[in-house]
Amino acid sequence: MATIEVNGRVYRSPAAPTAVICLDGVDPAYLDDAFERRLMPRLAEVAQNGADLRGLSQLPSFTNPNNLSIVTGAPPSVHGIPGNHYRAPDGREVQLTNPELVRAPSIHAEFQRAGVRVLAVTTKEKLRLLLSAGDVPCVSAEFADEQSLDGVDGPVAGLVRYPVPGIYDWNCSHYALELGLALSDRLDVELLYVSLTDFVQHTAGPGEMLSDGYLRELDRLVGEFMDAGWRLGLVADHGMNSKSNIRYLADELADRGIEGGHVTLPITDPYVVHHAALGSACWVDVDKDELERARAALLDVPGVEEVLLRDDAAVSFALPRDRIGDLFVLADAETALGKRAADHDLSALRGPLRSHGGRHEQEIPILLSERPVATLNGPPSNGDVHFLLLGEPA
Amino acid sequence: MATIEVNGRVYRSPAAPTAVICLDGVDPAYLDDAFERRLMPRLAEVAQNGADLRGLSQLPSFTNPNNLSIVTGAPPSVHGIPGNHYRAPDGREVQLTNPELVRAPSIHAEFQRAGVRVLAVTTKEKLRLLLSAGDVPCVSAEFADEQSLDGVDGPVAGLVRYPVPGIYDWNCSHYALELGLALSDRLDVELLYVSLTDFVQHTAGPGEMLSDGYLRELDRLVGEFMDAGWRLGLVADHGMNSKSNIRYLADELADRGIEGGHVTLPITDPYVVHHAALGSACWVDVDKDELERARAALLDVPGVEEVLLRDDAAVSFALPRDRIGDLFVLADAETALGKRAADHDLSALRGPLRSHGGRHEQEIPILLSERPVATLNGPPSNGDVHFLLLGEPA
Repeated sequence: MATIEVNGRVYRSPAAPTAVICLDGVDPAYLDDAFERRLMPRLAEVAQNGADLRGLSQLPSFTNPNNLSIVTGAPPSVHGIPGNHYRAPDGREVQLTNPELVRAPSIHAEFQRAGVRVLAVTTKEKLRLLLSAGDVPCVSAEFADEQSLDGVDGPVAGLVRYPVPGIYDWNCSHYALELGLALSDRLDVELLYVSLTDFVQHTAGPGEMLSDGYLRELDRLVGEFMDAGWRLGLVADHGMNSKSNIRYLADELADRGIEGGHVTLPITDPYVVHHAALGSACWVDVDKDELERARAALLDVPGVEEVLLRDDAAVSFALPRDRIGDLFVLADAETALGKRAADHDLSALRGPLRSHGGRHEQEIPILLSERPVATLNGPPSNGDVHFLLLGEPA
Repeated sequence: MATIEVNGRVYRSPAAPTAVICLDGVDPAYLDDAFERRLMPRLAEVAQNGADLRGLSQLPSFTNPNNLSIVTGAPPSVHGIPGNHYRAPDGREVQLTNPELVRAPSIHAEFQRAGVRVLAVTTKEKLRLLLSAGDVPCVSAEFADEQSLDGVDGPVAGLVRYPVPGIYDWNCSHYALELGLALSDRLDVELLYVSLTDFVQHTAGPGEMLSDGYLRELDRLVGEFMDAGWRLGLVADHGMNSKSNIRYLADELADRGIEGGHVTLPITDPYVVHHAALGSACWVDVDKDELERARAALLDVPGVEEVLLRDDAAVSFALPRDRIGDLFVLADAETALGKRAADHDLSALRGPLRSHGGRHEQEIPILLSERPVATLNGPPSNGDVHFLLLGEPA
């Protein structure tokens, strides 16, 4: 059996087709509730016959850093992506979507170099280039009408029996799973990664009609994967909490006499209907001689729980120190952080704000259809899911 | 410079005298509050000039597993100690104090074999034998009147200028620090470990007179270490929360028609005034055919947050699967778990119950007097403190 080494770990080629599915924003609370009401019989089968683990996301608990940890098996300090968005060295804020910014190879890229047939499908286009780093074939559900792959005639959407949903439709994640199944069948894929989107979780809590519908259809698709003989690893990138307290840190700093600070919101992405760019963690840059005053001012803001200096944050959360801020601000479970009130359009939200980014959305489910083959040296993070399924046993 | 390898990591001999201090039960909330009120100027100096990190404890967040992780640099799955107390293979409940149960060498034992002068001082006698595994010289403050060490005439208490406090006195932890300083001076110790006790934290929250007194005196002693040229690592074994909800799981199971289950409380130790053996995590053993019913019954108990099967708990929390229960029960922040109401004497407590053991007491401070020399491959746990101070740089 071929083995590869990626970012310090040894993985064995999949003996059976293996799929990892990132359940974007599926807080353990959704699954606890769904299992209690027997809403997801096929996933309950996975949990019962395989493993039903609790793990931790990377912090900040946003989508891009966690997706990259899942596919590289390494923390943001190694793969280089600490948010969806960052402040570049030239001071401009930019989306972290450029694959040249990724500092570590993915497990998929290395397996492909070893001759394994791999594929990545993302619901949101924003992840496509990052996941394709190292020439991994990758398509997005969002643009399936326009994207093609070697070995498939015409746009990949042609393989799915229903039209591409909109990115704010309840079933766009399910479309990504259908696309993954159809493309894997056509291309005889051995290692598949499918990344969902959390629009439903930003909009509806556990037990609400929208999330029940999402989970039921997810369960049906989990069943399709199982019936087709796939080994599965299901993991969330981060959890989700409702946020009743919004604090605009640029305003709060100005109110406390601190001018010239720059607030960067690493949740920022093109999908503002999800969260209006409001999450529970952010970076703040300030002049060096204002650092201690700014830190004290931020700690004084109701709902702010922790403020770490750059170097301490880099070690505490395994982050790339050159791509975070002078200060790393973490909010409590109920609080989301913004820039200035004027910078955020709350009317974009469909309902009360639900979001993530902080320590209180760090707990995640990890479900495996089989017992883990490899042994970890500590509690699992979502970055361990491929190692649990494919790692070289100790 | 001599290096040693312990449990898969390489450490370099201390170039300057190095002390790790386990601040038993010192939740980050105590330090946040103390720093805000400028109660601990010397510790603030450490934080400012070195590193002020946030890390995680091992779960369950009890004293023995975390002390062993600190001294071995490894999780409970490696060192073998998942609680203060466990149910032995013969069905009897026993204290986890026998050094023969420790499955991994300590950093101190290996450094001593390499010719480095090491010493461990524990406040509570209950840890002494575990910390002395591998022939590490170790004394307890609790029995300093009766214990001796090679190179010291008479009982070690003779070196400290005030009498041994009782184990429920506010300053017994400070006595352990005094003893560590005095013995290190006499024996020219190069690597020192001092483990405090959390009686004060079980009794008083942040800002209360008792904990302020504790922290002020701790700060003075941190200053003594610094002035004497020590490099310091300060870390908590676990956090602490007040517990307004007590649930007796043997009673709750019986109420739900489940008989014959056995509840083991891994917080149990000889110091019942601290916590009356009530913590936020426990093991439950049940007949195999009752497992799913018992799990559902436990999840139904208000305040119970998670119930994991043995195999899943072993992977999720890096625990030795043969020394935990069939079920691992975790409570919410406000809830402590007991056996039957009749088994616990709440009158032993001095005030409302404050305790730990669960996920909500997992966040811990890690303070270093210098920037970390080694790089971690993920967020730090308390088991990383020696590696941060002495690890081989990448």
